[in-house]
Amino acid sequence: MKLTILGCHSATPRWDANPTAQVLEVKGHLFLIDCAEGTQVQLRKFKIKFSRIRHVFISHLHGDHFFGLIGLIATFRLLGREAELHIYGPKGIKEAITLQLKLGASWTNYPLLFHELDSKEPTLIFEDEKVSVTTIPLNHRVYTNGFLIREKPGERGLDVDKARSLNVEMSYYRKIKGGADAVTKDGKIIPNAQITFDPEPTKSYAYCSDTGYFPQIVDQIKEVDMLYHEATFQEDHLELAEKTKHSTAKQAAAIARKAAVGTLVLGHYSGRYQDLEGFRTEAREIFDNVVLSEDGKVIEI
Amino acid sequence: MKLTILGCHSATPRWDANPTAQVLEVKGHLFLIDCAEGTQVQLRKFKIKFSRIRHVFISHLHGDHFFGLIGLIATFRLLGREAELHIYGPKGIKEAITLQLKLGASWTNYPLLFHELDSKEPTLIFEDEKVSVTTIPLNHRVYTNGFLIREKPGERGLDVDKARSLNVEMSYYRKIKGGADAVTKDGKIIPNAQITFDPEPTKSYAYCSDTGYFPQIVDQIKEVDMLYHEATFQEDHLELAEKTKHSTAKQAAAIARKAAVGTLVLGHYSGRYQDLEGFRTEAREIFDNVVLSEDGKVIEI
Repeated sequence: MKLTILGCHSATPRWDANPTAQVLEVKGHLFLIDCAEGTQVQLRKFKIKFSRIRHVFISHLHGDHFFGLIGLIATFRLLGREAELHIYGPKGIKEAITLQLKLGASWTNYPLLFHELDSKEPTLIFEDEKVSVTTIPLNHRVYTNGFLIREKPGERGLDVDKARSLNVEMSYYRKIKGGADAVTKDGKIIPNAQITFDPEPTKSYAYCSDTGYFPQIVDQIKEVDMLYHEATFQEDHLELAEKTKHSTAKQAAAIARKAAVGTLVLGHYSGRYQDLEGFRTEAREIFDNVVLSEDGKVIEI
Repeated sequence: MKLTILGCHSATPRWDANPTAQVLEVKGHLFLIDCAEGTQVQLRKFKIKFSRIRHVFISHLHGDHFFGLIGLIATFRLLGREAELHIYGPKGIKEAITLQLKLGASWTNYPLLFHELDSKEPTLIFEDEKVSVTTIPLNHRVYTNGFLIREKPGERGLDVDKARSLNVEMSYYRKIKGGADAVTKDGKIIPNAQITFDPEPTKSYAYCSDTGYFPQIVDQIKEVDMLYHEATFQEDHLELAEKTKHSTAKQAAAIARKAAVGTLVLGHYSGRYQDLEGFRTEAREIFDNVVLSEDGKVIEI
């Protein structure tokens, strides 16, 4: 998994600070997660082949997560896109987008498929043989979901040298990788574990923005490899965080610690903080492995 | 009048090229004309005090003229704006904006007033004692208006020295500036023209984007000081211009010449042209005084 931060600030786009959008590369997919105004320019700036994006996940319908989507959809049209584009987001997103396309008499020439969300329970919204995406219901001023992206276990690794030396039928290799026991040319059965390795460990990423402190998510994100958790404020504005249903860096770290995640990535910083190191300092009081997101930063999971 | 080009390219926002938006400073107003995605960042970049904007004029509802409006409206809310904001644009603009505000539960805390347009005749849409704005119906794929902004004549200039030497009553000065004849302290009447100068000449600006070649506008924009006319293409793509209802640089120049305007400003360049000088060269075959718009360029009228 490779995460590219396209924007990690809250509220309004600024000359040097973009609101929330991320691209996650996972098992051949390029998932776009949130899409603030200016996201399409960020995609170009960071040289991401954005025609490869087929799935867009929108957490909620506040502008700093959503206002760039209509422009991206229009640009895909102008670029002659033919591939399907799947949009996952809160109920209402389809009407907001299609109304604008209708007003501009600019319906897409590629299939634009909306998957509107309104459940308050974690819901599997995308799945193929290699990866799954499940909503993480959050606690914000409007209906908001985070997203939990998990790789599925791949095939077992086959010890080919051993298989050959044991005279295992080559036609069995595929089944063996799938977990079946091996059969030699002379009919002897060899337990799968003797000639295979465990598959590559799977990776998982939880994206949680925007939300007030909400420990109810801990069970669902337990032990993910990486958690992006919003940290709009530092503790000096705890009251404002509570009022606006955002989190402080310390609260994000508390979630990371309870969930025993691998790495905590912070973002969605309020514009009032000039120096972002304070977010890291506060979070580290609670949880060690903290990364500050930055526009353009690439994080390998 | 002072025009600042915020963006002057067509179609999609790019890393170094912004789609259409302009700010016109006129008689104490800051009029925003069109508002593509990223316009609010351009306003910050060029250090325009954008809280002073009270009137936004949207020519049509294609993304490269309109998709930045919702973000600007949301930003004004976050900045605690209290002043009225007037939006002039095609019918449907109110629904598109208010739906998004509703979905984000982010209604503005300042008065947001829509003036929806659907007339195909030139219509006076704004007027105060110093300036007027009239639509210029254009010929594009969707309902589109340009805007004609005219200063109104100011007061006549009073020759104070002459008024004193002639013993004109000071209490008459205001009326004299308004055009009344003067009266001396001993009751003698002096014709207005003898002690006043003509007022400063008024300025006018016509904004015409997007449109196919449309000489029907010539009468309305006759002798304006400055005409911004779209030139999406050069003559090598005349057919494409006709098909998409855009203009070539030569066609823009033909309009400027027929209307005998002062200066022609070109913009809305297609991304296919690397070198923009070709637009100037083509236009100059027909009309001398050609300016190429550039993002950030300031043009005094």
